[in-house]
Amino acid sequence: MKKICYGMVGGGPDSFIGDAHRKALNIDGQAVLTAGCFSRTPEKCLQTGSELGVSSERCYESYAQMAQKEAAREDGIDFVVVVTPNVSHYPVCKAFLEAGIHVACDKPLCLEVGQAEELCALAEEKGLLFLVTYTYMGHVTAKHIREYIRQGKLGKIRTVMAEYPQGWLAYEGEWGGKQGAWRCDPKQAGGTNCLGDLGTHIENAVATMTGLKIKRVLAKMDVVVPGRVLDDNDMVMVEYEGGATGCYWASQIAIGHDNDLRVRIYGENGSIEWRQETCEKVTIIERDGTIIERHRGNGGIEPSAAAYGRLPSGHTEGWLESMANLYRSFITCLRAKQDGSFTKDMIDFPTVHEGADGIRFLHACLRSAANGCTWEEL
Amino acid sequence: MKKICYGMVGGGPDSFIGDAHRKALNIDGQAVLTAGCFSRTPEKCLQTGSELGVSSERCYESYAQMAQKEAAREDGIDFVVVVTPNVSHYPVCKAFLEAGIHVACDKPLCLEVGQAEELCALAEEKGLLFLVTYTYMGHVTAKHIREYIRQGKLGKIRTVMAEYPQGWLAYEGEWGGKQGAWRCDPKQAGGTNCLGDLGTHIENAVATMTGLKIKRVLAKMDVVVPGRVLDDNDMVMVEYEGGATGCYWASQIAIGHDNDLRVRIYGENGSIEWRQETCEKVTIIERDGTIIERHRGNGGIEPSAAAYGRLPSGHTEGWLESMANLYRSFITCLRAKQDGSFTKDMIDFPTVHEGADGIRFLHACLRSAANGCTWEEL
Amino acid sequence: MKKICYGMVGGGPDSFIGDAHRKALNIDGQAVLTAGCFSRTPEKCLQTGSELGVSSERCYESYAQMAQKEAAREDGIDFVVVVTPNVSHYPVCKAFLEAGIHVACDKPLCLEVGQAEELCALAEEKGLLFLVTYTYMGHVTAKHIREYIRQGKLGKIRTVMAEYPQGWLAYEGEWGGKQGAWRCDPKQAGGTNCLGDLGTHIENAVATMTGLKIKRVLAKMDVVVPGRVLDDNDMVMVEYEGGATGCYWASQIAIGHDNDLRVRIYGENGSIEWRQETCEKVTIIERDGTIIERHRGNGGIEPSAAAYGRLPSGHTEGWLESMANLYRSFITCLRAKQDGSFTKDMIDFPTVHEGADGIRFLHACLRSAANGCTWEEL
Amino acid sequence: MKKICYGMVGGGPDSFIGDAHRKALNIDGQAVLTAGCFSRTPEKCLQTGSELGVSSERCYESYAQMAQKEAAREDGIDFVVVVTPNVSHYPVCKAFLEAGIHVACDKPLCLEVGQAEELCALAEEKGLLFLVTYTYMGHVTAKHIREYIRQGKLGKIRTVMAEYPQGWLAYEGEWGGKQGAWRCDPKQAGGTNCLGDLGTHIENAVATMTGLKIKRVLAKMDVVVPGRVLDDNDMVMVEYEGGATGCYWASQIAIGHDNDLRVRIYGENGSIEWRQETCEKVTIIERDGTIIERHRGNGGIEPSAAAYGRLPSGHTEGWLESMANLYRSFITCLRAKQDGSFTKDMIDFPTVHEGADGIRFLHACLRSAANGCTWEEL
Repeated sequence: MKKICYGMVGGGPDSFIGDAHRKALNIDGQAVLTAGCFSRTPEKCLQTGSELGVSSERCYESYAQMAQKEAAREDGIDFVVVVTPNVSHYPVCKAFLEAGIHVACDKPLCLEVGQAEELCALAEEKGLLFLVTYTYMGHVTAKHIREYIRQGKLGKIRTVMAEYPQGWLAYEGEWGGKQGAWRCDPKQAGGTNCLGDLGTHIENAVATMTGLKIKRVLAKMDVVVPGRVLDDNDMVMVEYEGGATGCYWASQIAIGHDNDLRVRIYGENGSIEWRQETCEKVTIIERDGTIIERHRGNGGIEPSAAAYGRLPSGHTEGWLESMANLYRSFITCLRAKQDGSFTKDMIDFPTVHEGADGIRFLHACLRSAANGCTWEEL
Repeated sequence: MKKICYGMVGGGPDSFIGDAHRKALNIDGQAVLTAGCFSRTPEKCLQTGSELGVSSERCYESYAQMAQKEAAREDGIDFVVVVTPNVSHYPVCKAFLEAGIHVACDKPLCLEVGQAEELCALAEEKGLLFLVTYTYMGHVTAKHIREYIRQGKLGKIRTVMAEYPQGWLAYEGEWGGKQGAWRCDPKQAGGTNCLGDLGTHIENAVATMTGLKIKRVLAKMDVVVPGRVLDDNDMVMVEYEGGATGCYWASQIAIGHDNDLRVRIYGENGSIEWRQETCEKVTIIERDGTIIERHRGNGGIEPSAAAYGRLPSGHTEGWLESMANLYRSFITCLRAKQDGSFTKDMIDFPTVHEGADGIRFLHACLRSAANGCTWEEL
Repeated sequence: MKKICYGMVGGGPDSFIGDAHRKALNIDGQAVLTAGCFSRTPEKCLQTGSELGVSSERCYESYAQMAQKEAAREDGIDFVVVVTPNVSHYPVCKAFLEAGIHVACDKPLCLEVGQAEELCALAEEKGLLFLVTYTYMGHVTAKHIREYIRQGKLGKIRTVMAEYPQGWLAYEGEWGGKQGAWRCDPKQAGGTNCLGDLGTHIENAVATMTGLKIKRVLAKMDVVVPGRVLDDNDMVMVEYEGGATGCYWASQIAIGHDNDLRVRIYGENGSIEWRQETCEKVTIIERDGTIIERHRGNGGIEPSAAAYGRLPSGHTEGWLESMANLYRSFITCLRAKQDGSFTKDMIDFPTVHEGADGIRFLHACLRSAANGCTWEEL
Repeated sequence: MKKICYGMVGGGPDSFIGDAHRKALNIDGQAVLTAGCFSRTPEKCLQTGSELGVSSERCYESYAQMAQKEAAREDGIDFVVVVTPNVSHYPVCKAFLEAGIHVACDKPLCLEVGQAEELCALAEEKGLLFLVTYTYMGHVTAKHIREYIRQGKLGKIRTVMAEYPQGWLAYEGEWGGKQGAWRCDPKQAGGTNCLGDLGTHIENAVATMTGLKIKRVLAKMDVVVPGRVLDDNDMVMVEYEGGATGCYWASQIAIGHDNDLRVRIYGENGSIEWRQETCEKVTIIERDGTIIERHRGNGGIEPSAAAYGRLPSGHTEGWLESMANLYRSFITCLRAKQDGSFTKDMIDFPTVHEGADGIRFLHACLRSAANGCTWEEL
């Protein structure tokens, strides 16, 4: 089978997320990195390219040049991975869409609702695939929950408690290194730090698992650590269409939490608990209170979810496999685009539309917080 | 040592909480039940009295009669335990205070802020002890947390996440038996079901452990199960004096949760996690992220808390011991009152003042919810 | 209902287990302590009696005197609780049986198989009840497991892994105080420390839950802490009648374990996991690997087991309640003996026969260990 | 940096372990698959080769041919991965060693002690690297434990409890598919099924973490599921040099366990608990009983172990990363061999010597079991 070729914007030396995307793509070995604009500093870009086996003439000085040149090559990249700071997601994605290249972009999609809607329209118009890497929704257990709820097994959903606490930015004067620096800098991160970084994951996880649409939000966004200007601890009350309610908490000052995305969903016929850090299992409570623990790889996992597993149960899969699962569906769709067999129902990954939902959520929260915690429609 | 004698109002046939108080008082064997008005139905009152070895002439037809007669007896009760539905807490407590009898009353203390303040004033004026049985604060681990924080080991507290989900009232048409019936009935429970029953425990647990004073609240109180008029799922945002924030969730529709009071406290120098259902342990996270689990009965538990333990570590203590710990301090104070050695710093139990704080919290939440989620000062 | 009266041998100042038995008996308030030989030192005996409200003329200088005098009284005790060091269980129990008084004795029942068989015969001959307080089998969850297996839901049992590690005697030169001193002293504990104290609990728990009879054992009994003469770390391989196998581990040197009795049972149609320290739940795995967690107080618990619960689910019960459950059945049987309604199938507590099984187990292990780990029939 | 090339013997269609090795090698992208003898059936071999991008002239009909041809090529493979059933490990490894090619072989190394010793000698003589993929020892937390103990923080080790239960072969007539079939077949698996497959992992995990050398073993090896001839449930008592003791349990009939390798180590100054299925954390108990949980990615992990992490804490790593860590050190050493900088202390992976220890352990256990559970020296 012909290998798919991809390029990367961002992901230079010291980048965590770029390296993580590359390793995730490596696992199944379906795509090869052949071009990149890994850094705005040419030497750094060339250094990373050289380490990764990208020929120097395909290490570009700007994303614009890269989009143009790759689009023009016979053997140009099939898709681009965008892993820059939030502020540049929009222009980079736009450039590649305009060049006719499929896009995979890290979340949050962009900064403004208008930008998000423009990217949605552009992707539709060009007929291009657009993956937004809400990584955690790649987990087999997350997919199981989505399918379980889709089949109505939980009945009408009543309330959702979801949270994403981290502790690494709890310290005054210690800004979490390069990662912390750009996230807390309004120029690179946009108008929000914590809610943009973590809150969007919560929003997407709940939307993906439950299918609920948010009607309005009430947000309290706080700056806790002295010297910071962007939020680092956020609470959001949510009302969904149809009457369900939710409560979200995102924090970077919760010492003791590593990366603790957790979703609890309460329906009229039972409940579900899921925690990213123990992603190999899901807890399902039936109407009569029976508590059932299901493991990836065991019977009882919905077949459409189970199909993503690579190893037998108990042979732990983790974050990279979750990301790889998003790419697996993305590349399947991409091949289908290339051979003309693509249909929309093949998409089993978060797209630019879910990315735009995240930006709408962020802006409603920002309005609410600015108004002293009012209810704001999405 | 002379045994202390007590009476009980409420706690007739099918009462859960009355029987629970009696068993808790039995454990240490320091007090004997000698009088009661166990039910408004005289036959039921006599039946319970007979089963419990209370002489029939001390089984009273009304609490008023009981207060009066017991106050007049040479061998009258030393204190009364009030375990009636919420609506009658106020008049019953008032009657016994006026009769000069010490009071232990279940929470919530009463229905109205004015009532609460009247009971506070009356207890002060009469020099009487008044225990409000926020049971969970009797746990050794809860006392350890209070002391740990008091000593400043957590630094400035930043945010608190606390919740108390239950699932037993999740079902339409199945009202949780007698217990559920009165709690969902505005005539017996007052203006709130879930927040009054569970939310007050959250409020008290956080106040007790952290010492934080609530400045204002924003509450969303929902009625989820069709056919119900009082709240069964509540979310509250909290701002404390000094700048810390909190988020509380109380629910009776969370299938899969039995009685899941849980408090997480985040400070600048670490965090604490505590869960009532695993009350034999407490998790303490230090500033550098080191996660430590401490068990009741082991070294490392603050001595003032450890002193309440009855069994070696791993020989599990539970709810009854927690309640018994409140009574242990209450009876110690009562004996000290009797022999003239009492001083206020001997009090190591929740009093009428903490009870009144709970009513103030409830009413601020009710105002906020009625106004569509506004911030309301306490 | 007439209160049952009991006496106690042992349980003087600093005794853990005597106090624990008294508190357990207090919970339900069905029995009153009216006599005792709490210590061999008369002053200590009187001091404890006075603290507990036992009249001084019923505080005896010797158990023999107590058995004789109480048997002669019109209002003599209905039963005796024996909580002395192991070495004196046999003569004390014998004296009360001979005096016609029902007996509750802590485990292990005695030191020698011959003694055990003599006590069995004597209890039968006299028609007296004999409770051996294997405390942990009083737990609702333990009773649930027994009933679940009795009904054949696990199919044929294949293998059992059971262990009881503690860490309190891990330290050279620190002998665990008074408790540790007598347990490590061959004169008071008999020929074994750890296996007698903890191993018998394992043996009884497995026998009670599964109904399996041990055919033969192979034991490795080690003395780990320098300066000690009795075993403090023991491993036993077991073969049961019918072909199942087992592996037991008892230890007092396992730092980090408080009181960690744990039983795992594997059958052809599923498995069961149970841990004393989290006794409010039991994990049941069905044939297809579905993992189910059941909580005391919830539906799904076998009714005969559930009936022992005192509090709703999530209102934690612990060690004292477990002990109280043994006494509840014992006192029910005792009342039935008194009113003539007793039948053997009413017994729902471990008797002298289970106590004797423990001694047979110990002696087979001691023979095996002495022979360098041979298989020894029971 | 020049990419390392490797070949594979085994790993054809339906192979779990071959695919797993390839994915693990992919993660870091340091090695490329360029040759293989994926199946004894030529069509299957070619099919797998084609799917994996291996040119057809390097898809070999026999391992012997492959060893010879690849050794002769200028661009021949740098190392071979051997993932055939156990019975052919020995001849395959021998052929590649004799051809001067480095070897990575799945465990158990081979069937007979003589074979193991021959492979050890051959690797030494030829100066070739030989990785035996005891996968679990690649985990960062496992490496942390090894280093923690090496530094003496646990003091003298006293006892070790280790187990590896699985449930997938619990069913009569359902043999676990292709995987189960060959494992239960003496012709392909050798004289043991369960102890060879799982027991060797236990033996290696304990040896690696503690550094303890086994002096003698006493093994009970049982065939539980009717119709089977090889062991499926094994218990082993262990005595180590220096006086420590151990108890191992390996099972394939323990319904409810997926892949539950677990090691608990008790020393005079504390204890350690580690479980493969929750490999992102390790529990360390200090001398005073303080229970500490450490997570991969956090401070407090020994730097030499932490260096193997790829993702921040809470971004879960699993089985593939663990395997990839073994290969990371193996490839580092291989490059050092190629550039002449290799020294033995660079080896941070299990070698043919640890593989041979596993075979010695198995044979001592087989002798013990055959003799009815005697102690057998290694």
